[in-house]
Amino acid sequence: MSMRVVIIGAVALGPKAASRCKRLAPDAEIVLVDQAERISYGGCGIPYYVSGEVNRVEELQSTPYGTIRDADFFRTHKGVSVLTRTRATSVDRNAKTVTVEDLASGRTFTLPYDKLVLATGSSPNKIPVPGLDLAGITPATTLDEAEAIREDAESGKIAAAVVVGGGFIGLETAVALGDMWGIPTSVVEMAEHILPGFLSPTLARMAAKDLEDNGVRVYASEKVLSFSGEKGRVAAVVTDKRTLPADLVIMAAGVRPNTELAEKAGLKLTNRGLIVVDDHMRTSDPCIYAGGDCVSVANLVTGKPGWYPLGSMANRQGRVIGTNLAGSDATFPGAVGSWGIKLLGQNCAGAGLTVETALREGFDAVNVHVEQIDRAHFYPEKNLMALELVVDKPGGRVLGIQGMCADGDALAARINAVAPLLAREATICDVSNLEVLYSPPFAAAMDIVNVVGNVAENVLAGRLDPMTQEEFERLWAERGANDVFFLDVRVGRDAGPMLKKYPGDWHSIPQDRIAGRLDEIPTDRPVVLICNTGLRSFEALVALAAAGRRNTRSVLGGLAGAKRLGVDI
Amino acid sequence: MSMRVVIIGAVALGPKAASRCKRLAPDAEIVLVDQAERISYGGCGIPYYVSGEVNRVEELQSTPYGTIRDADFFRTHKGVSVLTRTRATSVDRNAKTVTVEDLASGRTFTLPYDKLVLATGSSPNKIPVPGLDLAGITPATTLDEAEAIREDAESGKIAAAVVVGGGFIGLETAVALGDMWGIPTSVVEMAEHILPGFLSPTLARMAAKDLEDNGVRVYASEKVLSFSGEKGRVAAVVTDKRTLPADLVIMAAGVRPNTELAEKAGLKLTNRGLIVVDDHMRTSDPCIYAGGDCVSVANLVTGKPGWYPLGSMANRQGRVIGTNLAGSDATFPGAVGSWGIKLLGQNCAGAGLTVETALREGFDAVNVHVEQIDRAHFYPEKNLMALELVVDKPGGRVLGIQGMCADGDALAARINAVAPLLAREATICDVSNLEVLYSPPFAAAMDIVNVVGNVAENVLAGRLDPMTQEEFERLWAERGANDVFFLDVRVGRDAGPMLKKYPGDWHSIPQDRIAGRLDEIPTDRPVVLICNTGLRSFEALVALAAAGRRNTRSVLGGLAGAKRLGVDI
Repeated sequence: MSMRVVIIGAVALGPKAASRCKRLAPDAEIVLVDQAERISYGGCGIPYYVSGEVNRVEELQSTPYGTIRDADFFRTHKGVSVLTRTRATSVDRNAKTVTVEDLASGRTFTLPYDKLVLATGSSPNKIPVPGLDLAGITPATTLDEAEAIREDAESGKIAAAVVVGGGFIGLETAVALGDMWGIPTSVVEMAEHILPGFLSPTLARMAAKDLEDNGVRVYASEKVLSFSGEKGRVAAVVTDKRTLPADLVIMAAGVRPNTELAEKAGLKLTNRGLIVVDDHMRTSDPCIYAGGDCVSVANLVTGKPGWYPLGSMANRQGRVIGTNLAGSDATFPGAVGSWGIKLLGQNCAGAGLTVETALREGFDAVNVHVEQIDRAHFYPEKNLMALELVVDKPGGRVLGIQGMCADGDALAARINAVAPLLAREATICDVSNLEVLYSPPFAAAMDIVNVVGNVAENVLAGRLDPMTQEEFERLWAERGANDVFFLDVRVGRDAGPMLKKYPGDWHSIPQDRIAGRLDEIPTDRPVVLICNTGLRSFEALVALAAAGRRNTRSVLGGLAGAKRLGVDI
Repeated sequence: MSMRVVIIGAVALGPKAASRCKRLAPDAEIVLVDQAERISYGGCGIPYYVSGEVNRVEELQSTPYGTIRDADFFRTHKGVSVLTRTRATSVDRNAKTVTVEDLASGRTFTLPYDKLVLATGSSPNKIPVPGLDLAGITPATTLDEAEAIREDAESGKIAAAVVVGGGFIGLETAVALGDMWGIPTSVVEMAEHILPGFLSPTLARMAAKDLEDNGVRVYASEKVLSFSGEKGRVAAVVTDKRTLPADLVIMAAGVRPNTELAEKAGLKLTNRGLIVVDDHMRTSDPCIYAGGDCVSVANLVTGKPGWYPLGSMANRQGRVIGTNLAGSDATFPGAVGSWGIKLLGQNCAGAGLTVETALREGFDAVNVHVEQIDRAHFYPEKNLMALELVVDKPGGRVLGIQGMCADGDALAARINAVAPLLAREATICDVSNLEVLYSPPFAAAMDIVNVVGNVAENVLAGRLDPMTQEEFERLWAERGANDVFFLDVRVGRDAGPMLKKYPGDWHSIPQDRIAGRLDEIPTDRPVVLICNTGLRSFEALVALAAAGRRNTRSVLGGLAGAKRLGVDI
């Protein structure tokens, strides 16, 4: 008798596991079960459908060659049966059956299995506040929701939108509504900054500034208390700080794993409530596999259980499960958490831990920030990139990298290069020597990714006590109350405007003149050295240190960083 | 007494080593010695100066903040002495002195050293053929040469140019002359294809097609026999196959390391004549360091001595040498050879070994070719990418990756992600699971880099006997003489035009119809399955295999690859 496989969930991992299994074991009888009518779609594409960049919703359901991936497609192209609008209600592990309910008829029946796959995904978090049931308040995770939001946006009737949650889906949807449709849009994020856990506070503020500069308002450290409505439809979002008018509210306050079925079946869950799987994506029951948003895989930076609810994870894990279902042997050892997001003028991306997460995980971590052109500085088409490296001080191990650039692919070229190192206990030295491909149109001879390693090395060696942009901002704002000496070490023509704007507060000695003008630099006041990116201020710091001056610090990312952050200067 | 350092060569590695050493050991007395007047320039930028994309030659000599890096700059900004137009003629290792000649006066004198650095670089190869001394024949490696070529190009008097050598400098210069200045330009390459050792024959033909499609002629497997002239200036290049009119000839037939000084000083050289250094960039004399184009560093794929004459190597090695000169400890373990080049419509890049090199090195290597969109297929701005993975069959170790895409940064994002794996004995499984950052604007959920790993895995598992584009091309061209059955498995509307164009020769059964139309597919003839990229033809192959049909092969890269290659179809 051929092997019977039941797969619960048919969005990303389920179809991938089914197709792969069927290719390797053509005799397998595979049934895909899903509550929804529409299956196998690119949920991550929803913001681009909302924006109109993706014209028809069917494009999110189609193969690259334009065939809709519906139940019929899986039957004819893949030899896989699909039960749509069918909900799995329980698993009997002894009898090896799944009880399902046909949602149209209410009829229940059981499906026998030899191997079962749980691809139950995740659901948007609900925040328990009054008014949540008003019309016009919706998540943006299913195609039905996407169509409704797009219809609203196209109608021209939305006067203002609020997105609750400054994570990936929230920001992508805010960009779609605000930029593409010109709807006044605000993002409310409960955490201290947007993309919490993914960006440092500095980069997050830079990201927020990019959104704000392009018309999307960002309210961080702000909590939604209630929704108020008119005639049953939402009219405003009430936070702990203000009331924001809104006739469309996108709920994007994170997701929670759908693990009820697994829990009821007695499968092992992590403390966080995720399904435990081994490196073959097998649950605590050897006949049951699970993957995607509902499972925990190893965080290869910390070695602890991690959670990566991301479409790319689901696809890769789906293939591994498909291989194992078919009796072959494939493993998924874990992840470091690479991610990227297109904002408005800028893109952000990262991999591994932020400095905040690293500190929480017990690492003695430090973060360095570099601003540099993303290719040879003499090449005509180029952008300034910001890159941060998170390093464990004792051994110099690299724990994470995050960055921002107007060119998202150029940023990806650096993040992707460092990501494989994170799982392999690589150190700063590996980043300093990292071989990113070089040619003036693609990289600098001493590329920004090497420079961020070099700067980290200087910091760990004690050659440089880095001043963050926030520290600089605070010291500058309080300059009337402190005795900090702000020294611009750029050439005179560059420093000129600042000297004129802030006479007495701003000082200028070009880096190459410092050795000869030591007497102009106070020895009894803290000296903050600044240039455009942090390169010359470091050189100046070294020159001053050589002259016995230790009262100096250098601003990482310089005035380019300050501008990106929106420091009032 | 402070440490005396002499550095011979002041283009890339020398200045970097000097600056780094001086930052760490401010007391060091450093002298940079160079034969030329102009130092510390971005030689890799020369093609972009020739093209006019870089406006002034000074930009190649400037810091990112616009200061010219001349002798005065190094004195004032770095505290480093520079002797320009000064040639080092010999090293006395016992006396620890270098004898140098002032080229202006002819005066010779000695420089004492505690530590010596050889940063003597490389020189363009000369090919010993008649007419080489005619005016108008020049390499493109120094700023003087660059200025002369740009002047010629700007003059409007160049009727035709020939570039001898289809490596990086040759192709970049050909692009500059042909595309930017509209000068009819040809490239003559002695090897079987352009970028020998860097691309497979398939990708190299695709690269050549990109050049040809944009007006640059490529003549591979062709040897220059002589240059003929008129009134002392070159007028034509005579090859073993034709005579190409040319009043400007760029000599770009590779470079050779400048190791005369090292050899005379008795330093250890490799069989290939490169200076041997350890992982601290120290030569066989512990007081002498060397780096850049004149040394051999480990090839981290093969473990054997490698050679990477590239500006980025020089910069990173220079920093390592500077650190070690100053008494700190830095290492440069070797390289895998990442590279990139901007052509005309396309860019090429790679890392590690090509399949040809791998076979020569004794690996039982195979190469797989994939064509796929460089981001989510539904995302509006996108390009088709070609990616090849070179794998050692016995253990599945990944030996190299090469590719081509209209978006060079998107290509870099994949090549850079795989490069770190090459030095770490990673296998196909690591590429299948490789975590490139995912979001629809940057990558596909199952990204091309994962797919090329997946395809390689299918090949190694014997699920797929891949047909290369060249094999397909040959079988198609000989279709009158063989009995191959060409089966297009795309949907009917896509296959239609080919059916009409080649009635009887081209057949069509959409992939999902194959199981029901088995009787239309011959069992006694070889069947070649083809679709647009190789995805559906693989699925078709699997379906046919399940039906007991083993007489099938699938064309890797499909018709997209055929189009890129220029197959006559």
